[in-house]
Amino acid sequence: MTSTQPLAALNEIPAYLQTLLDYEKQAVQHLAPDVWGYLSGGAMREISVGQNLSQFERIQLIPRHLNDLTQGNTSLELFGQHYPHPIFLAPIGHQQLFHPQGEAATTLAAEVMQSNYVLSTFTNTAMDQLNPHNPYKWFQLYWQGSREKSYPLIGQAEQYGFKAIVITVDAPHVGIRDRERQLAFHLPNDMQHPHTPTHISFPDVSPSEHKLFNGLMKVSPKWDDIEWLVKNTQLPVLLKGVLHPADAKKAIELGVQGLIISNHGGRILDTSISPLTALEIIKDHLPADIPLLYDGGIRRGTDVFKALALGASAVLIGRPYIYGLATAGALGVAHVIRTLLEEFEVTMALMGTATLKEINRDYIYRS
Amino acid sequence: MTSTQPLAALNEIPAYLQTLLDYEKQAVQHLAPDVWGYLSGGAMREISVGQNLSQFERIQLIPRHLNDLTQGNTSLELFGQHYPHPIFLAPIGHQQLFHPQGEAATTLAAEVMQSNYVLSTFTNTAMDQLNPHNPYKWFQLYWQGSREKSYPLIGQAEQYGFKAIVITVDAPHVGIRDRERQLAFHLPNDMQHPHTPTHISFPDVSPSEHKLFNGLMKVSPKWDDIEWLVKNTQLPVLLKGVLHPADAKKAIELGVQGLIISNHGGRILDTSISPLTALEIIKDHLPADIPLLYDGGIRRGTDVFKALALGASAVLIGRPYIYGLATAGALGVAHVIRTLLEEFEVTMALMGTATLKEINRDYIYRS
Amino acid sequence: MTSTQPLAALNEIPAYLQTLLDYEKQAVQHLAPDVWGYLSGGAMREISVGQNLSQFERIQLIPRHLNDLTQGNTSLELFGQHYPHPIFLAPIGHQQLFHPQGEAATTLAAEVMQSNYVLSTFTNTAMDQLNPHNPYKWFQLYWQGSREKSYPLIGQAEQYGFKAIVITVDAPHVGIRDRERQLAFHLPNDMQHPHTPTHISFPDVSPSEHKLFNGLMKVSPKWDDIEWLVKNTQLPVLLKGVLHPADAKKAIELGVQGLIISNHGGRILDTSISPLTALEIIKDHLPADIPLLYDGGIRRGTDVFKALALGASAVLIGRPYIYGLATAGALGVAHVIRTLLEEFEVTMALMGTATLKEINRDYIYRS
Amino acid sequence: MTSTQPLAALNEIPAYLQTLLDYEKQAVQHLAPDVWGYLSGGAMREISVGQNLSQFERIQLIPRHLNDLTQGNTSLELFGQHYPHPIFLAPIGHQQLFHPQGEAATTLAAEVMQSNYVLSTFTNTAMDQLNPHNPYKWFQLYWQGSREKSYPLIGQAEQYGFKAIVITVDAPHVGIRDRERQLAFHLPNDMQHPHTPTHISFPDVSPSEHKLFNGLMKVSPKWDDIEWLVKNTQLPVLLKGVLHPADAKKAIELGVQGLIISNHGGRILDTSISPLTALEIIKDHLPADIPLLYDGGIRRGTDVFKALALGASAVLIGRPYIYGLATAGALGVAHVIRTLLEEFEVTMALMGTATLKEINRDYIYRS
Repeated sequence: MTSTQPLAALNEIPAYLQTLLDYEKQAVQHLAPDVWGYLSGGAMREISVGQNLSQFERIQLIPRHLNDLTQGNTSLELFGQHYPHPIFLAPIGHQQLFHPQGEAATTLAAEVMQSNYVLSTFTNTAMDQLNPHNPYKWFQLYWQGSREKSYPLIGQAEQYGFKAIVITVDAPHVGIRDRERQLAFHLPNDMQHPHTPTHISFPDVSPSEHKLFNGLMKVSPKWDDIEWLVKNTQLPVLLKGVLHPADAKKAIELGVQGLIISNHGGRILDTSISPLTALEIIKDHLPADIPLLYDGGIRRGTDVFKALALGASAVLIGRPYIYGLATAGALGVAHVIRTLLEEFEVTMALMGTATLKEINRDYIYRS
Repeated sequence: MTSTQPLAALNEIPAYLQTLLDYEKQAVQHLAPDVWGYLSGGAMREISVGQNLSQFERIQLIPRHLNDLTQGNTSLELFGQHYPHPIFLAPIGHQQLFHPQGEAATTLAAEVMQSNYVLSTFTNTAMDQLNPHNPYKWFQLYWQGSREKSYPLIGQAEQYGFKAIVITVDAPHVGIRDRERQLAFHLPNDMQHPHTPTHISFPDVSPSEHKLFNGLMKVSPKWDDIEWLVKNTQLPVLLKGVLHPADAKKAIELGVQGLIISNHGGRILDTSISPLTALEIIKDHLPADIPLLYDGGIRRGTDVFKALALGASAVLIGRPYIYGLATAGALGVAHVIRTLLEEFEVTMALMGTATLKEINRDYIYRS
Repeated sequence: MTSTQPLAALNEIPAYLQTLLDYEKQAVQHLAPDVWGYLSGGAMREISVGQNLSQFERIQLIPRHLNDLTQGNTSLELFGQHYPHPIFLAPIGHQQLFHPQGEAATTLAAEVMQSNYVLSTFTNTAMDQLNPHNPYKWFQLYWQGSREKSYPLIGQAEQYGFKAIVITVDAPHVGIRDRERQLAFHLPNDMQHPHTPTHISFPDVSPSEHKLFNGLMKVSPKWDDIEWLVKNTQLPVLLKGVLHPADAKKAIELGVQGLIISNHGGRILDTSISPLTALEIIKDHLPADIPLLYDGGIRRGTDVFKALALGASAVLIGRPYIYGLATAGALGVAHVIRTLLEEFEVTMALMGTATLKEINRDYIYRS
Repeated sequence: MTSTQPLAALNEIPAYLQTLLDYEKQAVQHLAPDVWGYLSGGAMREISVGQNLSQFERIQLIPRHLNDLTQGNTSLELFGQHYPHPIFLAPIGHQQLFHPQGEAATTLAAEVMQSNYVLSTFTNTAMDQLNPHNPYKWFQLYWQGSREKSYPLIGQAEQYGFKAIVITVDAPHVGIRDRERQLAFHLPNDMQHPHTPTHISFPDVSPSEHKLFNGLMKVSPKWDDIEWLVKNTQLPVLLKGVLHPADAKKAIELGVQGLIISNHGGRILDTSISPLTALEIIKDHLPADIPLLYDGGIRRGTDVFKALALGASAVLIGRPYIYGLATAGALGVAHVIRTLLEEFEVTMALMGTATLKEINRDYIYRS
């Protein structure tokens, strides 16, 4: 990595940016090395970061041919809401790290592309700044250490027209990220988060108590908090980060309405189960009508198809849209979404599937 | 890749061209970089291009010894026609891209080598230019958007002595080819295709309609077109590109007489099922007497043997004969075929098999 | 490897030493090439050295979420003795090779970190030099060629407060180490071992006898020596190096109280069974209450978790703490232990497990 | 590869030659590039050459401990003959290519090391030049095109004290070796083979006949030739190159007394079944008392142990002893054998096995 200044964001999309992989190669030039390390890196030796990508290669596609696709479309329905396509934007905080306009640019692009956007608790742009009439937005909740401190966020999400609450459950402790620690990355001191303090304050721990178990673990959400959350909002609640089928079943029993199968982009726990594998296992453990969303490693239209074939109703992309944001702001985000959506549509055509409902495991071969 | 001019085609075969892999290394020197990218590349990240080759390494041979092979030969019969050997030439269009004589050179070489040649709809040489007395030729049909526009091609194929119709069904949309797009490859504006317009015109799409599903998909062939085709030609009809056993069964029920198991050289859908795997699965789903042909990744005589052992009656080679064409025109194509055929004959001898009919899965071990 | 002098050991821990892998990269700079080869190398081509590390990647973690961990801790009980955490130090001899203070530094660090230390027979520091009041210490016995010569060591271990005897059974002959032999590594002539001669004297062999089988094998321990050992000490006896389930069962029948599953860091027999695999197999062959300890390739907190999930009560680290010793003496050893322990605690939190007893195979997925 | 002259053979063994792998790195310096390519290379892309080595890594060892090995030895009995150890020398022809003394040096080393030597039909040294009193020698027969031409060789083998006839059955046609062909290797014109013409003359083929099937295949041995051979010699007959269990069973039914499981060092048929796999399969198909010998990829004492554990009575090494021959003549061959034998003895000790008969699959784990 050179010591030169990062390039400024572009104002138009060069012709050579044709795939999400191209955007990754481009974005590294627009970010400082420590921010790039924070964005692209993950837990420990980044084995899970790599496997989130490589797992898709082991899943092979068996196309069907000669079907009539002239009435085809990519739409789906979730919790009574129509979505034009299944490519959603995963919650990512602190987006002003990547582009001066941060989440404001992302929300604009998502709205134009009718891509459902899951706004992070750690957003630099407040919920009330988003278009209240755009129905394609959900709110991601990081537990604020108590029900009292978490409740106002839920209320605002309802007030400003968000259509679901996604609570992240896989990060009671930050991941141990070798690369990020070597780069000594830290958030800018003056960064503003309208909805949360940057660091949740920990409870006091006596000298005889364990700093981690008796301290930080006290302020992480518990199953009864999930039960409380479900009862205290009109919105559907989804858990993000579930990987164990027993957790999946328990969540549904408590009234959770959907799950996002994710290993947090490999940023929290290295060598976790591949989320595609977890998706398939969990799908087999739940009633067929429980919506599962998939998050992790999506880079191509074929990846979207595979996740849907293995049980997902929709997918979330994370780093790729930030690569678009760093490269060209809202324009870059929109182009990333459009690129992936067009690849997915072509994949549907080549697979002989006219609607999302037709996509299932019969189209999959495992090598 | 250097910016120097490509080498002119050779007039004789240098001694160092001894295998099809040697021809690949040679051909790159005779073609412009964008044409080389178009020829050697494939869909997306070219994972399927690579797997078409590597899949053969997982299939191991168990030779038999001490049998009497003195009456051995490589001949086969298909649809009542005798073929001296099972190495056919796959349909590849626009061959003037690779050598000024294009398909004219290929047809000459194929005839000399008694190799059955499947002429592409996108040929630069018209059907009536081929030797009408050479029985080793089939015609590949790209659907022309309607029965009316497709019918004349079928009529000509019958008129000029082609022995079968091969309709390609796996490419209702062109593959998304990263490398080719980066190289901005396009066909020369003045290229002549005697049997088809270079681009089939799409139906008009209203603003509310989906450009892909309501547009392009309207002009792709459907199952009832296959049924119509079978009923409207005296020639046997084969489907090329079938990978799913359910499609294979349906095709046979509709009167299709043979299948070419292929993933289009990895050029259409990346990470598709390996065609050798599909061959074996489909073989198990069909009556034993339905001819299956295999296309994809054949480079060595051992590869031919493996495809036959897993259920193929014959194999098609694609890029390798174009490597021969680019290197040395008709002479190169003929030498490529001869090289592969001799390797296959030696493989038969080393495997202890005297005829194609003896070759079966008993000679195979999977590692 | 350069010919420059090795760096002197550090007096403080630089900020960039954040993981055990960092210590490996650092330690090579503090040791002469032949000592580094001796320390980091292993038997023959070092395939087992590599697999001891890579085996952990095939074991994936399935985290649980939202459990209440506020009463969590890392303690365990073994043979009636309480241990604050399950990270033990494996027996390694000749530690003055790596730092002038040798085992004296290691014992200090182990005591500070409350890490159970298994002192090698080949220690450069005598047993009576260790703190007699520190309960976290075991003694490793290399058989001294006879019961008579071995007995005094057992007596001293009891006298100086060691809590268990670990007898190493997997090294009746030194490993054939290609790298070490090429480097012509040998112990310094003047090195002092207070408890053993550097080389056990072999019995005389007549010309007609086999030097290995009739010579060296005579002085290696036999099953009846183990039986004798168990009967002649009040301390629990553990066998180190067991990999075959039949040996594991026989040992328990003879009164051995625990096993250390180990392939000696890949230093003795190349291409041995991966010790994680052996751990799981042996766990299935023994009563559940027999303590199994795991040794081999532990580098991350996730590795500790995996070994425990597959059946270990505690783990031993070897080379990593020597990397700490070579880098910064007692300070380095302590920091290595602390680093690994903190990673393990975070892993427990991320896995949703509050105590060691909760950790089992339900948290594991094999890819 | 440089254009400098190959080094002359050494007169003593340098200290750095410690393993068979060291000899490979050394030998390349003592041979001309084309001879090195002929010796080290194999069929086509040399996939089988590589797999003959890598297959051993997938086989893991599970050692036993604490057994009494003081009566251990490495001897075996085959066809009523005692052999001090199970490391035999495979038949390799034309050894004057590698050292001026050729087979004369090899036979001397084999005799000193009591290693059973299988002399090739293509030897440059006649059978009568070997020590008639050395019982550790077998004769390898290449079929001479007819019974009449082959019979004299059998007679001489009996006359000069050879203890078995090994007939090679896997090479009715020479392998297609890409590397060797690129190097244009050929035998020196003036090379003397006392027992065979360099090229067996082929029968005349009429223009309508197939050169391979109707020509060369006529002069290759058939099953009834094997039957004839068994009946026309007092010596035990072994087939070399058998890989298919049906061939193995047929051979035994016809009176063949042993088999050498081999893929000819990967020199004949690329991507053949790994010979270790074939050994195990064939062992399961035959009565337990039929001796199977293993040939292919043995480089370490652990490899010898693995082959024996999977069913071999003894193993043959090929290229490694030629590496010794090229490096230092008879001295090099002897040192290669001694090195491998010592590694095997240490492996037996570390595995807890006192005799060859104890070595079986219970000591093996497959990863």
